[in-house]
Amino acid sequence: MDTKLFENPIFRAYIFYGCLLTLKTIGMVFLIAKYRFKKQIFISPEDTKMFLVKENATVTYDDPDIERCRRAHLNDLENIPFFMFVSFFYVLTDPNPIIAINLFRIYTTVRFIYTFVYAVIVVPQPARSISWTIGFWITMYITISTAIHFW
Amino acid sequence: MDTKLFENPIFRAYIFYGCLLTLKTIGMVFLIAKYRFKKQIFISPEDTKMFLVKENATVTYDDPDIERCRRAHLNDLENIPFFMFVSFFYVLTDPNPIIAINLFRIYTTVRFIYTFVYAVIVVPQPARSISWTIGFWITMYITISTAIHFW
Amino acid sequence: MDTKLFENPIFRAYIFYGCLLTLKTIGMVFLIAKYRFKKQIFISPEDTKMFLVKENATVTYDDPDIERCRRAHLNDLENIPFFMFVSFFYVLTDPNPIIAINLFRIYTTVRFIYTFVYAVIVVPQPARSISWTIGFWITMYITISTAIHFW
Repeated sequence: MDTKLFENPIFRAYIFYGCLLTLKTIGMVFLIAKYRFKKQIFISPEDTKMFLVKENATVTYDDPDIERCRRAHLNDLENIPFFMFVSFFYVLTDPNPIIAINLFRIYTTVRFIYTFVYAVIVVPQPARSISWTIGFWITMYITISTAIHFW
Repeated sequence: MDTKLFENPIFRAYIFYGCLLTLKTIGMVFLIAKYRFKKQIFISPEDTKMFLVKENATVTYDDPDIERCRRAHLNDLENIPFFMFVSFFYVLTDPNPIIAINLFRIYTTVRFIYTFVYAVIVVPQPARSISWTIGFWITMYITISTAIHFW
Repeated sequence: MDTKLFENPIFRAYIFYGCLLTLKTIGMVFLIAKYRFKKQIFISPEDTKMFLVKENATVTYDDPDIERCRRAHLNDLENIPFFMFVSFFYVLTDPNPIIAINLFRIYTTVRFIYTFVYAVIVVPQPARSISWTIGFWITMYITISTAIHFW
């Protein structure tokens, strides 16, 4: 890519927040693993015979804490890759830098809040709904702006 | 990116259809929410104490309509991000524009059909199999062409 | 994109291994379909009335072989798209070619091993843990390097 794109603050912000979102999403595994080892509940039969796993280890798919983390993780997969995809092309539409960079910032913030209120400390609704909805409409705005630009 | 890529009709079509696929996939939530509110069946316990949710709201994971939509959504996640990834690099292999643009168009069409016959109005098989298979082989063709080009 | 990027061996390796990972992930369907037809266990009621499906076909979500393949597939979705996203921008940070190309090579290899030991022939743990962990830390390294570069 040419040097101009590299010096573009929108492009740099896009990559930086995309990396933060990636760390957050793949980091869900630490939260899930913490519960799995604490509760000795694993995902596959061979895991119960692993090093450091106790004899009472079981395989179940109905533990409320573990399934809650897995639902939060699945919601990330439903939303974040699509946000990152459309945002890349949104950067190429030469948007207003203040709007664009703040959209990336707000999106990243609400996705961190979403995970926190869903899977770390369960905060009553509508905490999760609001954080999800803000992220959803940011993605919608970015997608529609980009689609119109490249029509 | 340089101006030439921007004026490339294959690249523009790629972005446009990628945005349509993104809207379709993230839009699955409207279909699922419609059923959740109509049937008062939610995904997490705290949702049953939300504003606008009735007292008889429950949490179950076996409602046929809701699970059907979720399966259709999961199938999108299994296919569309990979299609969008390889198609980006396929554009860079300088393919025949008529073939490339029509592959994007057909792929987008069959994924909309897939969702429709799976989750909107249940059409007997092989409607879903055929729409899925066309999309699958388009992705295979694009991936293999691109892999050979960049070997 | 300019010609320089096209001739960049890191970029070419990135695309090539990304295509291999895409083929592997979307190819999971063959493994799952093999079990579905062999065991006559399908995902949706309309599938049991399909051409080539026997009369004793059922819909269940607890077959150990099928669910094992679906877990392996879901793990791909949790990891591979994020790896491919951050690796693209990692290529743009102008990394050491020997390190970068080998990271892509090792990542691809361990993801193939992961699928093999999880879903093709069940190898006792820690085979799956080790292959997953190597891939996870490669993604972490790439993501953190890239985030620091574009801060």
